[in-house]
Formats: sequence, structure tokens, C-alpha cells
Amino acid sequence: MTHPSPISDIAMIGLGVMGKNLALNIADHGYHVAVFDVDKLKVNAVINQEAEERATITGGDKTAARMTACDSLKMVLEKLAKPRALVLSVPAGAPVDGVCQSLIEAGIEADDIVIDTGNSLWTDTVAREAQYQGQFIFFSSAVSGGEVGARFGPSLMPSGDPAAWQHVAPIWEAIAAKVDANTGLPIERFEAGNPVLEGEPCTAYIGPAGAGHYVKMVHNGIEYADMQLICEAYQLLKDGLGFSALQISEVFSTWDKGSLNSYLMNISAKVLQQADPLSDKPLVEMILDKAGQKGTGLWTAVSSLQIGCPAPTIAEAVYARAVSTQKPLRQALSTKLAGPTLASNPDPSPQLSEQDRQAFIDALEDALYCAKVCCYAQGFQLMAMAGAEQHWQLNFAEIAKIWRAGCIIRATFLQSITQAYVENPELTHLLLADSFNQSLSARQMQWRRTVCAAVMQGTPAPCITSALAYYDSYRCETLPANLLQGQRDFFGAHTFERTDKPAGEKYHFNWSDKKPSLTKV
Amino acid sequence: MTHPSPISDIAMIGLGVMGKNLALNIADHGYHVAVFDVDKLKVNAVINQEAEERATITGGDKTAARMTACDSLKMVLEKLAKPRALVLSVPAGAPVDGVCQSLIEAGIEADDIVIDTGNSLWTDTVAREAQYQGQFIFFSSAVSGGEVGARFGPSLMPSGDPAAWQHVAPIWEAIAAKVDANTGLPIERFEAGNPVLEGEPCTAYIGPAGAGHYVKMVHNGIEYADMQLICEAYQLLKDGLGFSALQISEVFSTWDKGSLNSYLMNISAKVLQQADPLSDKPLVEMILDKAGQKGTGLWTAVSSLQIGCPAPTIAEAVYARAVSTQKPLRQALSTKLAGPTLASNPDPSPQLSEQDRQAFIDALEDALYCAKVCCYAQGFQLMAMAGAEQHWQLNFAEIAKIWRAGCIIRATFLQSITQAYVENPELTHLLLADSFNQSLSARQMQWRRTVCAAVMQGTPAPCITSALAYYDSYRCETLPANLLQGQRDFFGAHTFERTDKPAGEKYHFNWSDKKPSLTKV
Repeated sequence: MTHPSPISDIAMIGLGVMGKNLALNIADHGYHVAVFDVDKLKVNAVINQEAEERATITGGDKTAARMTACDSLKMVLEKLAKPRALVLSVPAGAPVDGVCQSLIEAGIEADDIVIDTGNSLWTDTVAREAQYQGQFIFFSSAVSGGEVGARFGPSLMPSGDPAAWQHVAPIWEAIAAKVDANTGLPIERFEAGNPVLEGEPCTAYIGPAGAGHYVKMVHNGIEYADMQLICEAYQLLKDGLGFSALQISEVFSTWDKGSLNSYLMNISAKVLQQADPLSDKPLVEMILDKAGQKGTGLWTAVSSLQIGCPAPTIAEAVYARAVSTQKPLRQALSTKLAGPTLASNPDPSPQLSEQDRQAFIDALEDALYCAKVCCYAQGFQLMAMAGAEQHWQLNFAEIAKIWRAGCIIRATFLQSITQAYVENPELTHLLLADSFNQSLSARQMQWRRTVCAAVMQGTPAPCITSALAYYDSYRCETLPANLLQGQRDFFGAHTFERTDKPAGEKYHFNWSDKKPSLTKV
Repeated sequence: MTHPSPISDIAMIGLGVMGKNLALNIADHGYHVAVFDVDKLKVNAVINQEAEERATITGGDKTAARMTACDSLKMVLEKLAKPRALVLSVPAGAPVDGVCQSLIEAGIEADDIVIDTGNSLWTDTVAREAQYQGQFIFFSSAVSGGEVGARFGPSLMPSGDPAAWQHVAPIWEAIAAKVDANTGLPIERFEAGNPVLEGEPCTAYIGPAGAGHYVKMVHNGIEYADMQLICEAYQLLKDGLGFSALQISEVFSTWDKGSLNSYLMNISAKVLQQADPLSDKPLVEMILDKAGQKGTGLWTAVSSLQIGCPAPTIAEAVYARAVSTQKPLRQALSTKLAGPTLASNPDPSPQLSEQDRQAFIDALEDALYCAKVCCYAQGFQLMAMAGAEQHWQLNFAEIAKIWRAGCIIRATFLQSITQAYVENPELTHLLLADSFNQSLSARQMQWRRTVCAAVMQGTPAPCITSALAYYDSYRCETLPANLLQGQRDFFGAHTFERTDKPAGEKYHFNWSDKKPSLTKV
């Protein structure tokens, strides 16, 4: 005898890795999920996996399963409690609109809620909310944490209609990663049917439509920079000290116990210690050095340029991926461009004492920390400037909080950022927080030593280096833009302001040799 | 008795600084120009200026004037020989379309040619050519050279319908800046009625619609970086050696006689030596250090990110302008962030011997040269990648040629770039040309010394520094993107290629501790 399938609480449309795992995560928390994918094999797979997992947990009760397979969007709509909540996990771009159109044809109603969880461009989200108004409520929630996060606790960045959020919030707070409120540390679970119920959930309402995807985009921009910073440290240790992958893995493991503790540092140590099943080498040395990308990092850099928010460390990380893909060009240039190791400078590593090596490692640890703080400062300033432009009223303490677990950039460090914004919600730049400017001030000489070492050994460290130029630029009460304004006025009569005159008063100098003169414009 | 106004060869619509000077330049070359502006005062001003100048040249012949004042676009169309050629010099954006619509209403015909000379976004130009097809031919020609260039010889970057170019070419070649074909040096003129007829004109057909504005956009991106590089040298000399504006002006004048010879270096020396009429200080020290910008630099950086062409030196120049505008934040941070001068490092300048100072200056000269080559390499690679994407078939030798005079980035140096592309039109990267990789290889140690000096004295030099990281990145046959691909595969199953397997073969590693395994995807 088959049981009639119950009314579902929520639907999952699209059962790729992320959709499948989100659906299993939701079911773990007691909700019934209607599942649909154009690929029926994927529907069967998730239904079977959920049934098996549930049976194991319940000791074999086959009626305990919490998913309903649907073979059409019409059936999805029939199986849901009203107002319906439907989660989309389909590729960003045209597929999102494709499903939305199909849902309209299938009879979705005006107060039903569609939640886009893909990596959509935030401006698309804004446009979609307006486009579908009256037909259904287009809501969005960016998701970070990769496949494991989706399954056992992601970081969720919802935005859009506040009433829709009220409806979705209980489920979102249930499935999100959890953090110990006192320590700021993640409460991990890696087992089906083992939901963590206590702790602060890594989700919070971000703001109006598009805000959540914008914040997620910046998260990814920071992630790009953070990953590149670790890669630069890897190359500096490899080329500068001649360290093996295993030795570098050990350095990273040590750092992961200190102020550089983070998910990315942790997995980098793991990647570096993995042996290759097909050769006698470390796996990392068999991986081709051509980095892929899916666009969110470059969107962040583009947005920073358009808004006028300096984010050079994020842009450099995007460019570093681009250079990595141009391997034939690098191969050609590597034989033509001289560097210190090819010319005047012999390989320094054999000459270094154990003490010198440790000094190099310690300086690098500080440099990495400083550069990392700068790249987070860039991301938070970018969100602040975008939020002001869009009138989003972002809560940065909340954003830092929900990044403490579940997401790719989770790190102990986020607790310090949370505290900085809790202490001063109006903080306009992260480096204005004493905890950060003091820790950077204390370490900046080490950072300088690392950059000089990189420069003199010829190892590219675009992110570590650009972050230092960023730090030094903000240290300058006076920058040489006065000369730049002089140049612009010289060739294009673009005018300038004067330091001894009120702001906004424009002057033009007639730079001709014959009759030089200053005019107030 | 008034003379009947003759049929005009071309019209100028919009008589701001650029439009007025282009019109005067065209008239200097014997062409009759119909002029129009919504502001009648501007029409009168250019008519009077041209009549006066012409009378001076001809010894008082008032009938020799070559301009016709028009009080409507209808009148402009009546005064022009067919097919009509109309030059627009109006602000980029909506005003361009406003005039186009008005021209349609005034009766413009299908084979008439409208030439947009503003700083339009290249994609707008592409859209407009399609939009106005059948009503008139929308052609475009970017203009560089500022007001003096427009008056006495700009660099012109035309693109669009090839037949339209045939029609316009004689006038364009006449008014463009001229270069001595043998030396590559500009043939200057700075006097009305003194047209230079010999030499190679700084204009050439760039390609289909949008190509010219794209090339001009990249020109401006390079210009941003070149200006910022000079500003960084200024700050390094000021903060590092304690040099006065006049001393720095002398250094720049000396450099302007060597391989750094350029218009921008030349005018920077002039700006630095100018006294302020209102105080006893150099004018440059009274100019507020907040840089303005109009968008072309950031468009270049955005395009480089979107295309995947590394252009960090251009992006850093855009960010440097952004940081300069955040003066209150810099003032606040300058008291909170420690640097070498505040902490461990005393002001180094008094300790330097004359020899040390000269060594610093010489190293900086080499660093500036190297960074400059890299920023041009970035610009040319960007044009190459965009050109390939858009099927523009750009001729880089021609582009380098027409930048040798007239435009803001004109420099002796462009002759070397011209030669590199003449010798090898298929050159995929400027640093592959032996003339450049040899000159950079010879100077790279000096560049490294400069960057370390900047870093250890705490002076931001984002462009000089990012260019070195760019250089070192391309020197690396192997970059640490292998670790990055490992990270991406770890958290997102993004897969990787292997160095020992064919390109395109994707692998995924199951990184879980329980059952690590490698799978071909």
C-alpha cells in the first residue's frame, strides 16, 4: 500500500549538486519537500537517497520519507501548501527566466514565492522582482558553502520582499550553518539526520531585491582574493625557500591554528598534502596551473570600478586567473624576460639558515594577514558604497556574522569583523576599527619585508603587493593627485580645486608660456 | 555688401572647446565649414575668431573667411554639399541621440554622414550605427589631443562605414597631426593658417563601427596609467629625497630628453615649475589632491576584466583616482595606520649622499620606463583580444603610428612600438618584441630596487609596483594556479586538468578523508 504523498512545505526545482543537497538539508529539518528536475534520473536519485537516509535514521520506517517526486511544474504547484514557496537551483541567466515562465504557465499565483538560489547577477534579480510582480513574488537567496555547505549548513543571503522573508525564515534559519554565539566558531555537522538546532544561524535578511546577491558577489570577490593570497604564499615558499608541497602544507597547518585560521587555509593544507594516485608526486604538482572562473569575482571588480571604490586586491586576483590561462604566452615570455634568478641573483634558498627561513615564514604570515584584512576592508567598503547608492541599509555586523560559518571564506577572523561592526555600526572603513589598524600597524614592517623579498627573488605576488600599496595610499593624507589635476588642467582645461580655497571652487590655469594666468571658473 | 555664403564642405555641430577648435583647424586647410550650436554666442565667437584669423593671414581680405553661421540644423543641411558630412562635438550619451533625432526631423538623407567625435562608449557607437541605418550613415571618429590638438593637429581614430571614410578621409588627413616619417617625431604647428602639409597624418581607418572608440578608450586607459606613473615618481622624489617641485621639474626635464620623452612628461615638468600667482608656493602645491575622471579609464579597466586581459596597471590608475577623492577617509586613516616613517624608519633623505640620490633617480627612471612599457603592453593586448572577439582586424602598427603625435600619450616611445608591429604584424604581446624584452630585461633590477625603496619608505606606488608583478607573472612558466584549481575542486567540485594528460581532459578528486579517489569526468 502506498501512502498518499502529504502536502509539501516547500519545493526544490533543479536537482544538481546544490539543489539536491539543499533539498536533503531541508528534509533533515522535518520539512516536506516537493522535488522536480527536467532530468527524471535526478529526481529518482534524490528521492532514493532521502528515503535511504531517513530509513537508516528511523530504523527502517519507509513511511518516514519527506520528499515527493514531481514529474511536472503543475504537479509541484498541486503538492504545495499555499502560499507556495518554490526554491530554484538552476544555472544563473536565461534558465531562471525559463523556469519562471513555465511556472506562470503552470498556474503559479500572485502570493506564491519563488526563491532564486543561483549565482545570479544582482541587477538581474532587481529586474526580475519588478518583471514578475503581480504574477508571483520573486525572492532571492544567495547560497555559499559549496556542496558540503548546501547539505549540512550553508551561509544564506536572502533579499527581496520582507513578507516573503517572514514566510521562508523558519526553514532558512533551520538549514543554515550555525555558530556558537560566544566563540563565533562554527558548530559542524557532517551527517544526515543530525540537524544542529542551537547556535546563531548563518542567515539574515539582507535587504531589498538584489542586495543579497550583491553581498554574495562581494563574498566571492573576497574569496577570489583570499585564494590568490594563499597561492602567492605557496609560490613564495616554493620558490623562495625551495619548500616541498608537504613542507608548505605543514606551514599552512600551523598558520591555520593562528590568526590566519580559515576554511581556505585548512583545505589548502589538505590539498598540498594529497598524494597523486597516478604518480609518485604530490597531486598539486600534477594539476595544471590554469585557473577557471565563473564570473562573480570579475563582477565584483567591475562594480568596484564603476562605484569608485578601490578594490585593487580583488581586481588583481581576477587578473591573476586571467594570466594563468595564458600559459603558452607565459611559456614564450619566460625565455625572454630576465629576472633575478636568471641574471644577477643566485637561488637564495641554499644560503638561508634555519633562522632565516623561519624569519621568512613569520614575515610571510604577517604579510598574509595584513593583505587579507585589506581585501576584506575593500569588500566591506564596496558593500557600504553600493548599499548607500542603492539605499539598502545593509547591516554589516549581520553580514560578517553570517559569513562566520557555512561559506567558503569562513574564518575566525570574521568574528573580529563582526565585533568591529557591532561596536560601531557606522564604521565607514574596516581599517578605522582600532583592532584592525593596530594589528596592521604592528605587522606592517613584516609585510614590507615580504614584498621586498618577493620583488628581489622575482616571485609575482600581485595581491600581497597591491594590498600594501592600498594600505600606504590610505596612510597618505596627501597623494600626488595634485600633479595629476595639474596635468588634466594643462591638456584639457579640466580645472582644479585649491587647498586654500573652499571646496567646490574651481580654478583653471592658462598654462601657455605667453600669458600664464589663473582664473576662477 | 554681404557675400552669399558658399556651399560648405562639412558642418560642425557643437562649438565647445573641442568643436570650435576642430572647425578652425578644418577651415585652416581650405575647407568651408557650416557651424551650429544651440548657444548663438558660441556661433558668433567662432565666426568672429575665424574671420579675424583669416583676415590677418590674408592681409585683411574679409571675403576670405571660410565659415558659415547657421541658426538651425535645417539651415546646416541647406548649406552643405551632398552627400553631406556633419561632425558632432557634443557630450557623450543622450545629447548625441538628441542631435541625431533633430537631424532626422530637419531632413537629413540616407547617404549623409554624421561623424560623432565625442568620448562615446564604443558599444553605444555600435548600437547607433544600426539604429540610424537607412536614415543616415552614423560614423564615428574619436579625437585625442585636448584643445590644442583639436586646433593644430589631433590624433583621429575613425571607424564605421568604409565608403563614408573615403568621403571624409581627405579632410581628416589634412587636419590630423603630422609625423616625420623618418624620425617618427611630430611636426608641430601652433599658429592659425599655418597648416602642415607634409608628413604622415595621425589618422587611419581603424575598423567597423565602434572600433575607433574602443581604440580611443584604450588610449585613455593607457593615459590614466601613464599619468599616475609620473605622479608616483613625483611622490617618490618628494618623499624619498625631499625634493622640491622645482627640483622634480628638473629631473622630469632631464628624463624628457631620454627614453621617457613624452608629452605627459614634458607638461608635468612645466606644471611643476609653475609658481602660484596667489601665494609664494609652487602652484602644484596649492592644487587639491583630488583627481577627477570622466569614465574612459574605468571603461578600459572594466573591458579588460570582462575580456580576461590582465591590465592591472590601468586598473590601479583608476583606483588611485578613487582613493584620491576619499580625502577625509585618508586624513582619518593617516593618524591610525603606522608606516616606516612613523615607526622604525627615520626619514632617509638627510642620510643620502649625492651619489645615492642620483642612484635613486636613475633607478626610478628605469622603473618608470619598464612600468610604462608594461602599461602599453596591457593596452595593446587588450585591443588585440577585443579585436579578435569583435572581428575588427585591427592594424597595430597603424594605431601606434597615429598615436605618435597629436594625442595625449604621444611619445618617442610610440615609434619603437610602431617598429615592433611593422616588423611583426602578428605580434601577440608587446613584450615578445626583442626591442622591448631586451630593454626591460636590462633594467629590471633597477625597477626592483625602486619598488623596494618605495615599500621601505612607505610611499604608495601602485602602478609601478603592479606593473612589476605583471612582468614577473608573465615570466613564470608555472604559476600557483594549480593550488587554486585544487582549492576550487575541493570545495566546489570544479574539476582540473592534469599536466600529464591531454588538454581539455577534466579530473575531479574526491577529497574526503574516508575514500579519496581520482575520477576522470
